[in-house]
Amino acid sequence: MRILVDMDDVLADFDAEFLKRWQERHPEKMYVPLEDRKIFYVKESYPKELQNLVEDIYLEPGFFRNIMPMPGGIDAVKTMAQLGLEIFFCTSPLTAYKNCVLEKYEWVDQHFGPEWTNRIVLTKDKTLVKGDILIDDKPVITGAEPTPMWEHILYDRPYNRDINRKRLTWQNWKQVLDL
Amino acid sequence: MRILVDMDDVLADFDAEFLKRWQERHPEKMYVPLEDRKIFYVKESYPKELQNLVEDIYLEPGFFRNIMPMPGGIDAVKTMAQLGLEIFFCTSPLTAYKNCVLEKYEWVDQHFGPEWTNRIVLTKDKTLVKGDILIDDKPVITGAEPTPMWEHILYDRPYNRDINRKRLTWQNWKQVLDL
Repeated sequence: MRILVDMDDVLADFDAEFLKRWQERHPEKMYVPLEDRKIFYVKESYPKELQNLVEDIYLEPGFFRNIMPMPGGIDAVKTMAQLGLEIFFCTSPLTAYKNCVLEKYEWVDQHFGPEWTNRIVLTKDKTLVKGDILIDDKPVITGAEPTPMWEHILYDRPYNRDINRKRLTWQNWKQVLDL
Repeated sequence: MRILVDMDDVLADFDAEFLKRWQERHPEKMYVPLEDRKIFYVKESYPKELQNLVEDIYLEPGFFRNIMPMPGGIDAVKTMAQLGLEIFFCTSPLTAYKNCVLEKYEWVDQHFGPEWTNRIVLTKDKTLVKGDILIDDKPVITGAEPTPMWEHILYDRPYNRDINRKRLTWQNWKQVLDL
């Protein structure tokens, strides 16, 4: 069984890193706590007049490299591999790719070890990638391939709870995957 | 029809950039002209005692960004897209990913335009990617998927001529692909 695992907000706590930097940088401005996030993209979760400032935060050098892991995620993926599951990191770079591309590799290197960087598949279009399961927090995943070769299991996040689909967290993944 | 196009030594003239830098840096040392290359990896084409110096050349910052395009390649790919073929760049980073990962994105940006960077699939394992054709100079392509979903058409290079397989160049691609 091949499992494709998304990175941002599945293995890497993008939203927490964003909120931390946002509150440091703009302590006087409003912020949207995770539990109130109803929209997948953090930028679109903020009022129009703040969206450029939001973007500045996650485009800055070091943002992606310094994201903290989601609790339990690294252990879960390493356990999956020990159980004989084939793991690939399936992750989309930002269109403004300048910092995030390299830093995603550095993040995997730092948290999993260098040999795991061989397991990164960096693609804007995940429908091209063959796997049995894709664990991803994005509510709906589309691309060039009309019928992807994986089952999309949602990584449970407040902004995807309106989607009726199998979902998991790093606390209950073994039960959900029936392992 | 979806065409996956490799980058190094297919769209980007890796070998020429290497030879240029090698001869500038080590004018007194032997070099292997392209037509004498019998081995896919440039490093393994050189004697053991030179292999570290060979590697130093293509690991240095700016190497991947500055590679010249293969003559006719960019035009061919843009023509394919105009003909309605779906193009993705399917390229493997070096295990020493530090410079090449970002620079591959910069190369596509510079030679095709920023919107084409969305078409990059960066993966060590190309057997995971679904396409009809993979144009690649690597003699044999293996990975996790025992039966890849593409036909591998060789981009003709001296070091893959012992392989009996359909092959093309940017001069004859229309005939070979029957377009």
